[in-house]
Amino acid sequence: MRAQITDKDVAALCLGSVFLATGGGGDPYVNQLLVEQALREHGPVTLTPPDALKDDAFIVAMGEAGAPIVRMEQLPVGDEPVAALTAYQEVTGKRVSHVIPFEIGGGNSVLPLIAAAAHGLPIVDGDGMGRALPEAQMMTFPLAGLAPTPALAIDYQGDTLLFNTRSTADYERQLRAVLQAMGGMVLTVEFPMSGKDVRSAAVPGTLSLARDLGALLMRIRGEAEEGLPQIIDFFKGTLYRGCKQVFDGKIVDFQRRTVGGFDVGTVSIDALDGTSAEITIRNEYLAITSKGKALASVPDLITLIDEDSSQPINAERLSFGQRVRVLAIGAPSHFTTAKALEVVGPKAFGFDFPFGPAFPQG
Amino acid sequence: MRAQITDKDVAALCLGSVFLATGGGGDPYVNQLLVEQALREHGPVTLTPPDALKDDAFIVAMGEAGAPIVRMEQLPVGDEPVAALTAYQEVTGKRVSHVIPFEIGGGNSVLPLIAAAAHGLPIVDGDGMGRALPEAQMMTFPLAGLAPTPALAIDYQGDTLLFNTRSTADYERQLRAVLQAMGGMVLTVEFPMSGKDVRSAAVPGTLSLARDLGALLMRIRGEAEEGLPQIIDFFKGTLYRGCKQVFDGKIVDFQRRTVGGFDVGTVSIDALDGTSAEITIRNEYLAITSKGKALASVPDLITLIDEDSSQPINAERLSFGQRVRVLAIGAPSHFTTAKALEVVGPKAFGFDFPFGPAFPQG
Repeated sequence: MRAQITDKDVAALCLGSVFLATGGGGDPYVNQLLVEQALREHGPVTLTPPDALKDDAFIVAMGEAGAPIVRMEQLPVGDEPVAALTAYQEVTGKRVSHVIPFEIGGGNSVLPLIAAAAHGLPIVDGDGMGRALPEAQMMTFPLAGLAPTPALAIDYQGDTLLFNTRSTADYERQLRAVLQAMGGMVLTVEFPMSGKDVRSAAVPGTLSLARDLGALLMRIRGEAEEGLPQIIDFFKGTLYRGCKQVFDGKIVDFQRRTVGGFDVGTVSIDALDGTSAEITIRNEYLAITSKGKALASVPDLITLIDEDSSQPINAERLSFGQRVRVLAIGAPSHFTTAKALEVVGPKAFGFDFPFGPAFPQG
Repeated sequence: MRAQITDKDVAALCLGSVFLATGGGGDPYVNQLLVEQALREHGPVTLTPPDALKDDAFIVAMGEAGAPIVRMEQLPVGDEPVAALTAYQEVTGKRVSHVIPFEIGGGNSVLPLIAAAAHGLPIVDGDGMGRALPEAQMMTFPLAGLAPTPALAIDYQGDTLLFNTRSTADYERQLRAVLQAMGGMVLTVEFPMSGKDVRSAAVPGTLSLARDLGALLMRIRGEAEEGLPQIIDFFKGTLYRGCKQVFDGKIVDFQRRTVGGFDVGTVSIDALDGTSAEITIRNEYLAITSKGKALASVPDLITLIDEDSSQPINAERLSFGQRVRVLAIGAPSHFTTAKALEVVGPKAFGFDFPFGPAFPQG
């Protein structure tokens, strides 16, 4: 494992993150440019494995919350992560020692790098989801009993909000309520944690894994049949346990709208043999069902790749007529306990079927 | 003028405030009990006229925001104002020297006394409206160019939010958006100001005036015909310039609902001679119209008193069949400039008629 992230790593890191974002997390293109610029200006950022964190380290999670579609219309200025971390340290009176992405998802994997580079801080090689999911209480941090606040949100105008709540559910509800009044998208600094907290609660190694996965996806770009086996190979032996194709076909219907600060919708896919499948979206791809049966669902990762290019497709980039492969990747073990499944399993999202893991733990 | 507010003043202060609240500001009964208890426990609070403030005083405005009806169902614990001021000083790192009510309205006139008493601070004899109005940008503070943030909101669970916005409109929009997620009612600490700011921007003397008005209303309680002339007399020579009856009759229809964090509605009143009038409510009584003509409107104060008891009636206490007098009281001069009327005049509330002052300035 390389111990740094340089501007040369950002494209691969973004691409791997789109794959792990399961449709959500936002299109990373603008963030990629902003992060590359920040790393060129301030130099590389040190990548610290969770195991190397000292007990008294002070780590905060960062990322953007809101409906990903908003970012295709309203562009960040680029210094929000820097200003957010400055403001956070001012109001809390505490020096941050490391940042960590709250999720591996599209732009959210790399945004914390802007703050890390400008503030001269290392980034933890890990995150709070090992994927993207739509709500704060679905992170591994609260599942491990950690508190989200003090948390600070900053919008693209530079307005900030500092939250102090008793529960992650309160925090999520307040953040979601105020999102529309802040332009639909905010960057947050949240879950102040010790090194010990992060070692036990974070999904480890996901930034370097996303970078390596992205590098693989770049190498196989344009490979149709030959791409998939290499992706499947990549996931063997990782914390995700495996990756497999659960459906493939052509997108024949696509409905999406923004409701309560989320992108929600459905995608219908027809296979060559005439069978149909439907994917439910709430920022992320939550489940794929066919003939009334779940082929895969949260908390397992569902990722769509383009059949011709083998590249992952964000939910806001899906288009009618596109030929896609639907892949299922095993959920990190943080999400497969009975307690965690109450928060991130299919029933937490309103589905009536139980979780059937794509790669049961051995 | 007495230089202190004691627990014995609170009932009169609340009653006078209900009169000046023009229907809004919330029913003060619970706050009255909480404030009386705080003043008994901590002793009287010094009342400082704006003119006596030193330039380097540090004053914050306090009050509750939300739909007043909420407070009839969900009760405050009572230490929110104390906790809010403590949290405000902690996150801003500044010592507050005085508090001031952001509005003279029902419970909002007296709530800051809880914080003042517990923190051993004086309260400024004045406020930011000289009445109650539904939105933050309608205060005399922003009309004088002052900024509302850093501002802190606390809910009845103790959750807090710290706002830092570029404009009062941003602040109002964010606060209103998050209100529902915080139980519909929050207490805010806002508009950090110097003594110089308050001297030029606040409506002066309104706390002592509300207390004296309340004492009068107590004396005339139960007087029907004899009450009104004494109320009219009271307002002569004050900053409100005067008070007059613009309509009287029986409430024959009453519609109210809570929309976007506001109590909105209409009240229809029939006079003995058969004419009808309609009052429009948005937390406060905004306008009274009859035969397509405005009898009175914002920013002038419209207050309903019970015809039998001569006591003021909050919007959430109105009832079908009640016989009422509708009074118009002149707006403080802060609200009658062309610039202020753009924010607090009838057109700012969607009415199509211009402001016709009940008591034109001499």
